[in-house]
Amino acid sequence: MQFDIAIRNGTVVAAGGTYRADVGVVGERIVALGDCVSGSCEVDATGCYVLPGGIDPHVHLQMSQGAYVSADDFASGTIAAACGGTTTVIDFVEPAEGDGLLDALQSRREDAEHSVSVDYSLHMTIPAWHADRATTATEIEDAIDAGCTSFKLYLAYSGLQLDDVQLYRVLGWLTGLGGLPMVHCENGPLCDELRTRAVAAGRSGPGNHALTRPPRQEAEATGRAIDVAALAGSPLYVVHVSCAESLDRISMAKRRRELVYGETCPQYLFLQHDALDEALGERLVCAPPLRTCADNDALWRALATGALDALGTDHCPFSTSEKLGHADFTTIPGGLPSIEARLGLAYDGVNYGWFSLERWVAMCCTGPARIFGLTRKGQIAPGFDADLVVFDPMWERTIIAGETLHERVDWSPYSGRRLRGWPRDVFLRGRQIVRCGEFVGAADWGRFVTRCRSAAFEGRVV
Amino acid sequence: MQFDIAIRNGTVVAAGGTYRADVGVVGERIVALGDCVSGSCEVDATGCYVLPGGIDPHVHLQMSQGAYVSADDFASGTIAAACGGTTTVIDFVEPAEGDGLLDALQSRREDAEHSVSVDYSLHMTIPAWHADRATTATEIEDAIDAGCTSFKLYLAYSGLQLDDVQLYRVLGWLTGLGGLPMVHCENGPLCDELRTRAVAAGRSGPGNHALTRPPRQEAEATGRAIDVAALAGSPLYVVHVSCAESLDRISMAKRRRELVYGETCPQYLFLQHDALDEALGERLVCAPPLRTCADNDALWRALATGALDALGTDHCPFSTSEKLGHADFTTIPGGLPSIEARLGLAYDGVNYGWFSLERWVAMCCTGPARIFGLTRKGQIAPGFDADLVVFDPMWERTIIAGETLHERVDWSPYSGRRLRGWPRDVFLRGRQIVRCGEFVGAADWGRFVTRCRSAAFEGRVV
Amino acid sequence: MQFDIAIRNGTVVAAGGTYRADVGVVGERIVALGDCVSGSCEVDATGCYVLPGGIDPHVHLQMSQGAYVSADDFASGTIAAACGGTTTVIDFVEPAEGDGLLDALQSRREDAEHSVSVDYSLHMTIPAWHADRATTATEIEDAIDAGCTSFKLYLAYSGLQLDDVQLYRVLGWLTGLGGLPMVHCENGPLCDELRTRAVAAGRSGPGNHALTRPPRQEAEATGRAIDVAALAGSPLYVVHVSCAESLDRISMAKRRRELVYGETCPQYLFLQHDALDEALGERLVCAPPLRTCADNDALWRALATGALDALGTDHCPFSTSEKLGHADFTTIPGGLPSIEARLGLAYDGVNYGWFSLERWVAMCCTGPARIFGLTRKGQIAPGFDADLVVFDPMWERTIIAGETLHERVDWSPYSGRRLRGWPRDVFLRGRQIVRCGEFVGAADWGRFVTRCRSAAFEGRVV
Amino acid sequence: MQFDIAIRNGTVVAAGGTYRADVGVVGERIVALGDCVSGSCEVDATGCYVLPGGIDPHVHLQMSQGAYVSADDFASGTIAAACGGTTTVIDFVEPAEGDGLLDALQSRREDAEHSVSVDYSLHMTIPAWHADRATTATEIEDAIDAGCTSFKLYLAYSGLQLDDVQLYRVLGWLTGLGGLPMVHCENGPLCDELRTRAVAAGRSGPGNHALTRPPRQEAEATGRAIDVAALAGSPLYVVHVSCAESLDRISMAKRRRELVYGETCPQYLFLQHDALDEALGERLVCAPPLRTCADNDALWRALATGALDALGTDHCPFSTSEKLGHADFTTIPGGLPSIEARLGLAYDGVNYGWFSLERWVAMCCTGPARIFGLTRKGQIAPGFDADLVVFDPMWERTIIAGETLHERVDWSPYSGRRLRGWPRDVFLRGRQIVRCGEFVGAADWGRFVTRCRSAAFEGRVV
Repeated sequence: MQFDIAIRNGTVVAAGGTYRADVGVVGERIVALGDCVSGSCEVDATGCYVLPGGIDPHVHLQMSQGAYVSADDFASGTIAAACGGTTTVIDFVEPAEGDGLLDALQSRREDAEHSVSVDYSLHMTIPAWHADRATTATEIEDAIDAGCTSFKLYLAYSGLQLDDVQLYRVLGWLTGLGGLPMVHCENGPLCDELRTRAVAAGRSGPGNHALTRPPRQEAEATGRAIDVAALAGSPLYVVHVSCAESLDRISMAKRRRELVYGETCPQYLFLQHDALDEALGERLVCAPPLRTCADNDALWRALATGALDALGTDHCPFSTSEKLGHADFTTIPGGLPSIEARLGLAYDGVNYGWFSLERWVAMCCTGPARIFGLTRKGQIAPGFDADLVVFDPMWERTIIAGETLHERVDWSPYSGRRLRGWPRDVFLRGRQIVRCGEFVGAADWGRFVTRCRSAAFEGRVV
Repeated sequence: MQFDIAIRNGTVVAAGGTYRADVGVVGERIVALGDCVSGSCEVDATGCYVLPGGIDPHVHLQMSQGAYVSADDFASGTIAAACGGTTTVIDFVEPAEGDGLLDALQSRREDAEHSVSVDYSLHMTIPAWHADRATTATEIEDAIDAGCTSFKLYLAYSGLQLDDVQLYRVLGWLTGLGGLPMVHCENGPLCDELRTRAVAAGRSGPGNHALTRPPRQEAEATGRAIDVAALAGSPLYVVHVSCAESLDRISMAKRRRELVYGETCPQYLFLQHDALDEALGERLVCAPPLRTCADNDALWRALATGALDALGTDHCPFSTSEKLGHADFTTIPGGLPSIEARLGLAYDGVNYGWFSLERWVAMCCTGPARIFGLTRKGQIAPGFDADLVVFDPMWERTIIAGETLHERVDWSPYSGRRLRGWPRDVFLRGRQIVRCGEFVGAADWGRFVTRCRSAAFEGRVV
Repeated sequence: MQFDIAIRNGTVVAAGGTYRADVGVVGERIVALGDCVSGSCEVDATGCYVLPGGIDPHVHLQMSQGAYVSADDFASGTIAAACGGTTTVIDFVEPAEGDGLLDALQSRREDAEHSVSVDYSLHMTIPAWHADRATTATEIEDAIDAGCTSFKLYLAYSGLQLDDVQLYRVLGWLTGLGGLPMVHCENGPLCDELRTRAVAAGRSGPGNHALTRPPRQEAEATGRAIDVAALAGSPLYVVHVSCAESLDRISMAKRRRELVYGETCPQYLFLQHDALDEALGERLVCAPPLRTCADNDALWRALATGALDALGTDHCPFSTSEKLGHADFTTIPGGLPSIEARLGLAYDGVNYGWFSLERWVAMCCTGPARIFGLTRKGQIAPGFDADLVVFDPMWERTIIAGETLHERVDWSPYSGRRLRGWPRDVFLRGRQIVRCGEFVGAADWGRFVTRCRSAAFEGRVV
Repeated sequence: MQFDIAIRNGTVVAAGGTYRADVGVVGERIVALGDCVSGSCEVDATGCYVLPGGIDPHVHLQMSQGAYVSADDFASGTIAAACGGTTTVIDFVEPAEGDGLLDALQSRREDAEHSVSVDYSLHMTIPAWHADRATTATEIEDAIDAGCTSFKLYLAYSGLQLDDVQLYRVLGWLTGLGGLPMVHCENGPLCDELRTRAVAAGRSGPGNHALTRPPRQEAEATGRAIDVAALAGSPLYVVHVSCAESLDRISMAKRRRELVYGETCPQYLFLQHDALDEALGERLVCAPPLRTCADNDALWRALATGALDALGTDHCPFSTSEKLGHADFTTIPGGLPSIEARLGLAYDGVNYGWFSLERWVAMCCTGPARIFGLTRKGQIAPGFDADLVVFDPMWERTIIAGETLHERVDWSPYSGRRLRGWPRDVFLRGRQIVRCGEFVGAADWGRFVTRCRSAAFEGRVV
């Protein structure tokens, strides 16, 4: 059989095993795994791993945050994603007060249309105002029908944040309809109180950002979300876990066999809060804030053992000029970049022997696909989308913002870091979008992906 | 491409995912997974799961136990295995005092030669006498070179059982050479003391078998093996875990990130010790003994969450006449049959929603293959042996020893149990050995499989 | 030396040990422990235990609950307490919106004045309205100066309940001033939501009271209070713990060495929620609601091991006629009686061998005294108040409301229960108030006791 | 009433509370606690704590260890004990092979007779040879009748050490007869193996003493002793716990409500194994060996929370000349001094706010008394022996072996350490034996104390 594309001589890494196989692609799909597969276009992956395209379940492209907009728009952000080996990103819809969910979804899709170089999907945010309306249940159902099967809920940020009854109510709707809740677990009112006190006391430096969002409040909110989810009979996905205390609550829930998933991000694996008070420390403001080395370690371990299930980025960069020069820490726009280096950074865990190749693919590709109902993504198997990454484990690269990275932001917390292992070639539904590290795709090749309901609803532990 | 065999329209279940794919076989190997694969021989697997052939990591065929020999010889036992969807069994070499390990291996291989209908491999037992000789280290190295990379150590049974220093010494040799220890964790001397007391007190009924091997002594031995393995820097595989207390020790070791694997068997999932005192209860004597419903539950849960890694059978049946009529419980030959129903029984966990299809395949096929270094088994991927099972999830069968089972023993603890889901067709390295549940293979189709070292030695957590 | 009272030949039970000693009293104080003590009045305690007078840290006498007032007023309630061996009760001040804390304290003291047959003290409630005023901090300081050193905070009950910021703020004030917070841990808003849903769905029977206040919401609130206390650097006393889930959170906090105390009540040790749906089940409505036998067991064990520190009663009875005949469960006044049988019921734990005499005295007398700063109560030692109980461990009594009990309520959940062990003689500051089980005191013998700050503030683990 | 001795104006510290009281003594007994007690002899304890005399449950005076004898004999050791506030020491009987237990007891008593300045009692050792004889059960009964109610069992040291069956058998006898087992938990055979290997490899320095007795082997033996005790239905006292791993096993047993007690010693609280390789490091050889700072911390915490119950010393000093100059570490006599500074060292925990005065008295006095059946010791209450310590919390002393200490050994690991708090006056059964820190007693004032069975047998948790 003649394939359109044949990726030959590589080592396929799947969540369940690693083996030598060629991959044959016809049109947009993987059609065969085999030996001596030949194709019109042949890619030699000798010495490389062949992975399913990365899935970044947590990005914020061209997102408004007060007067600011995150630096990467759909165009630049998805090019960066592609170059880093990510072929699907899941961004967010944030309906304004008074907006219908479907309208907001449509509007967000229009923003992305013709601008995305990789596939994308959208989580729907349910802010407080919407949580209070009985008609929102119907709109949630419509959103699920429209392929938007996961829902972002906030326990922090005035206007967005849900109180316990709102949370319980929305979780009840979601579990009835098969929508997966993903919750930002910080205790917003407590953080606001601590911020107000800090500012009133003249503690204005960026280090106060971390001090006013201490680990224990995050753990409290995480524990509360787990409890309310248990009361509502709902699964739960906890976004951006930053600290050991929160992790403990998630681990205990898993031991009780509750369906709780945890995500962390590169910043919580590599960075520490002390840097906030160093030069240019303002740039590192994000929420939850950076923690300690001990927390980094705990999170690496959790990724290894499966206590955490997914690695997202919460990619939401702002330029140095936007980050600096604020009267106090409360007005600094929050968020860090890492959409491009995610796979490369996480591969450190393999280099250091902390986890296996399979775990790495599980947390970056297969896990997010299954958790978020991307039924044609995240696997290398016949019938799946031909989203493929040829990852060269020997390619050493030094990250330099603006040079080795395609993110449209003038800095990176990882600048200067030397990584071993980087995506060489990337394919999106059968089309090559990265060749030898260079972007060769186009802004209208990406598509909106409708999603099925999460594997969490399959009636069994994943 | 034309394949020798094409298994079409089935749903491939691998440890890492489940997807629709045809499987193409050439000669002894899987060559391709794909769509619309065609072959000289085509098997329609519509409505069925296609699994990697089962691996039973713990069987005792034609094993001498004092005056008795286990009922299934290599011939009958491997036919039963085949019919149950198991294409590889790992049996044991038990060198007598004074015997060289290699000689014993050779002799055991000769017993099996030309008699096996499925592939087989052998674990090497290191009894006390051998543990005391420095030359044994060299013999272990030779055994590993001969493809026998796992080693059975006993903490019970006079003659076999190692004391702590012997255990530490052997574990030290093994970890240096890359051999995986698998330990029978019961405190032999304590059990002997309890048996002696029971008999002296006239407590001779079969129920005393369980009372004289209480869960706490098993937990003690399990904890001790874990501790000594940690001191020796060795991984550890705990065979036939029977109770919640032992499980706790294994779970704690895993939380400390120690490389400890746990196996259980169908008897510990389905049966309870009370039955020992009922009619024909003698037949249920095995070691460790049957426990309680609470233990059954804990073990099912452990299989679901990964606290246990493998499901073996410890298949070692004796006929009703051999089991019955003993003066007291101490002379009853110990062991139960389940080589044939293993996959079917475990599938109950899927039927009840206790774990996923992937977990089921992981514990029955992929996990044992990786743990025991069967690098060409346990996966459905190009290059792997074409050991394949077409499993019909809707086929309902009632287990009846001597009728629906091919085990050469006149009873089964599962007789009368109705199962939903059973292997329909089974292939061994590209040759069909079971068709519609009927054995169609031959006694010389199975081969001895040399094994690589365990994945436990890959320098990372599996 | 000649004493006013000599209690002779008894066995003194103190939290730290049990020994034979006579107790000599002069005026209001214990003056000596010794041998062959003689006094103007001699009490023979042969065969009896001599305990420090019981301290009930949680009672609601003549408390308004909407249209109802709890059945026991200060007069009847303190007579019942006395007859049960309790010589100090701590009741509550509940300032109305707009009321100053000191005024409310004064007013509550006036209610009690000349009516109390045992000593009493008062906890100060800080309702939501007061939590929002900065001036409350000063009033808290005044209350502490006035001997009211513990503060009741609610996470349930609209009007009373504090949100997280209010809780954090009040805990901050308290820890700065040396006030001990005692928190009612239920998630009020969630319970209200569940109640509303139940009523809307026509589920109106009393069993719904328990279903709408499930254990998990109590555990959530308990965990949250522990987290917020940790953030505020405050100790914490959790009132009326009812279930194993809440207990777990308290135990974990203790293992982290956080200063968290737990109280339970007889109803959570002896009763189960199923009774709510039986005849007269309405009478058993209280909050948190009754739970299961497994919870009872967990609480007994926690009292034994010190995971719980105190046994209060939450005594707040209503008559059968007030409890019955409601359109739905939401209007039934909540609360149960047990002020009189507390020591006797808890002595079951000694009878059954679940805990020692010393633990019994610790949870009923010494612990509450130390936790709540009653520095002259709770010990049998020179200088302490001569609050003494001669407890006859052989006296068997059947509880019958209105007959063997002095509580002014026509029923008891313990009616018909046979107890072995009951207070024979009771002394309040050197005056005998109970003789052979008969009340011989007077309504103006009790006094308001000003309290020092809790032992929790002594800078070390108690 | 006129007392022989009146200790006035002090603060009595008992396990259950702290209060101002005078103590009146007549003859050998405490007769009264009171106010304004006067006596023929009056001691002003203003500003001081009055404690029950210390109980050191673990000392080895004039003990043979191969060619060596521990430096302190009964005479010097008990003077040192007295000066440190300890009025009762419990030493050991070690019957040689072939010796009857009673004969050995008698012989050991004769060694002590007329030499002891404080009271003493004896634990009976059951070595391997005795464990194998059925007649030993009768001798154990006789020993208990003779007031020797606790039994030392070794899992290490060839000749002494019991295997699992011997341990199980002896524990069975003890629990039937009411004898308390105290177990040295190290895995002797494993330690021997490690020592042999170290010496064979030329690793002869004293640091190897710690390396060849790693924490994990101690934890293993501790866990095994707990398991075997559970199987035998016996309580258990674990001597000299040195590390966090062992502690974990004890804590878990307590959480399962098993009757397991733990003891640690000053050396495991204050010293670290690194010092073994420094100058004069040989002197610090003891078994189990010194551990790390993290272990020190864990043990302090365990004393505070009650995870450990007693502080003994394992006092067994050897002179510098005996300790130094060995060809390798295996021949250095093992043991450290601390009989004199025990109370003072432990008082650091109070000074640092790690635990309360009551906990300090519990671990040094009351706990050992109750655990070891010293029913007239360990309390300040009428009827108890007038063993009393006037402890001056402000007295600052620098420990200097040979100067401030009375131990007959030329060094102390605590030399140079400055302590705040030291015993000023000490009384033994009504006779003053220390005045202002100076010994004023005599060698024949101490007596052998027969003991009752342990509080562990009272049928309830202590």
